[in-house]
Amino acid sequence: MNEVPGMETRVSSAGREVVIGRARPTVLIGERINPTGKKRLKESLQAGQMDQVLLEAEWQVRAGADILDVNVGAGGVDEIKMLPKVVAAILETFDIPLCLDSSHPAAIEAALAVYPGKPLINSVSAEEDSLESVLPLVKRAGAAVIGLALDEEGISSDPEKRLAAAQKIVARAEALGIPRSDVIIDCLMLSVAVNKEEGLKTLETIRLVRESLGVNITLGLSNISFGLPDRERINGIFLAAALGQGLTCPIVDVVKIKPFVMAADLVLGRDDYALRYIDYYRKNRKGGLGR
Amino acid sequence: MNEVPGMETRVSSAGREVVIGRARPTVLIGERINPTGKKRLKESLQAGQMDQVLLEAEWQVRAGADILDVNVGAGGVDEIKMLPKVVAAILETFDIPLCLDSSHPAAIEAALAVYPGKPLINSVSAEEDSLESVLPLVKRAGAAVIGLALDEEGISSDPEKRLAAAQKIVARAEALGIPRSDVIIDCLMLSVAVNKEEGLKTLETIRLVRESLGVNITLGLSNISFGLPDRERINGIFLAAALGQGLTCPIVDVVKIKPFVMAADLVLGRDDYALRYIDYYRKNRKGGLGR
Repeated sequence: MNEVPGMETRVSSAGREVVIGRARPTVLIGERINPTGKKRLKESLQAGQMDQVLLEAEWQVRAGADILDVNVGAGGVDEIKMLPKVVAAILETFDIPLCLDSSHPAAIEAALAVYPGKPLINSVSAEEDSLESVLPLVKRAGAAVIGLALDEEGISSDPEKRLAAAQKIVARAEALGIPRSDVIIDCLMLSVAVNKEEGLKTLETIRLVRESLGVNITLGLSNISFGLPDRERINGIFLAAALGQGLTCPIVDVVKIKPFVMAADLVLGRDDYALRYIDYYRKNRKGGLGR
Repeated sequence: MNEVPGMETRVSSAGREVVIGRARPTVLIGERINPTGKKRLKESLQAGQMDQVLLEAEWQVRAGADILDVNVGAGGVDEIKMLPKVVAAILETFDIPLCLDSSHPAAIEAALAVYPGKPLINSVSAEEDSLESVLPLVKRAGAAVIGLALDEEGISSDPEKRLAAAQKIVARAEALGIPRSDVIIDCLMLSVAVNKEEGLKTLETIRLVRESLGVNITLGLSNISFGLPDRERINGIFLAAALGQGLTCPIVDVVKIKPFVMAADLVLGRDDYALRYIDYYRKNRKGGLGR
């Protein structure tokens, strides 16, 4: 197998750097700062208040998030004003790298203006509009970026086509002078309740992207269990299979997924003498690893 | 990749056939009928009583075991007399295929004499003594056999050497007229508490055996977490990664591992419309999938 060697992605806040790479412990991107389906968070953002955002951030940070995804997209919220405001509020309280998440490049540009380190930008896709509007922002800010493995035709059910979209994003980034190590590919995940092959398709996409591009890989994990009961266990079990294939920095609810990640890093050779696992277990043993 | 296609192994009791194969739901071999470390079971076997054996068997069967491993090896127990007696007692109560587990070929031979279907024999290794004493029994009985991926030098830390041992077993079996599909390879598992690479070595062995031999694969799963807390979760998480690589019939405590297997089969494309998962969840929802 002529596999491309794995590479490292570095992101940072003012005082803290996080390194993402295959030989290192899994990096967790906290997904909870997003008003979709969260009534109180949505209302507080509409009112321009920071209390709910900071509460969600605190939960994710205390549970062990390495990076926080920040999305303020909701009806009645001006993202161009609100995203930088929320970013500043979080960074005032927590020294943790952020993932600036918006479908509006102008909102990301506004947030970049107040960001003190090297953020992650979420996201670009292989669609021409997206490549043209987002990649120049990434280059100018010296940021890292999440590339969605989809193009004008949407999410393909063929892993080879998802790979082709990822390759296009990496090629266009490199043509602009963005190093490949600053592109993280989202291999995309749909619910297995709808199509039983979805898990296998995503695992195969991860393998293809890892082998042919060598870049870091992310995934919005919780989609897999949409519509099913006991979602936490399904997500945790799929996470283990995906980490084994090359996933390095999933986007997750850290509070729920952390115990599974500690066990996965342990069995996948990322925990010397089980020290991290045992330390985590000691601190969280009530009910057994946070259950 | 010139991968050998996966094959199916069939084992049976008097009235029930179990088919092991990569496209099918995971087959669980219950591990609990083994006196090692179980004082009451050991004492009852020494006294020639069947009550503890039948109790362990009932738990595994009720939890969803597909096959039961039966091992009576303990000081003060004559395996040649006791193994057939225990096999007969279990089959009188439960119509389920058995895995006849002994390091004494004579005990396996005695058990074969009372076995009404096609059992699994546990085990042969690539050691010359083992190949010469066990494979003729397998051939004569028309049984299936578990081949341990080790030779005279013991368990290798090199996955390629474990593969070589597996290849030797398959070649010798085929030379005797035992079809390859009746050989199941145990890829072997040591604790990650001692060496953090053990999980990765076993995963790599599974991949190599799957790609180059195409046979079914088993594993004594619980070894991975020896010496660590919250073993159930570690075992379940590693199981998911191993099933993703090609493990098809792990040897496990079915009571503890079943919820993880239901979730793993779901995310690995072995559960149409999540019907098995949802049915299992409904029947076991107290505390969430048996936790």
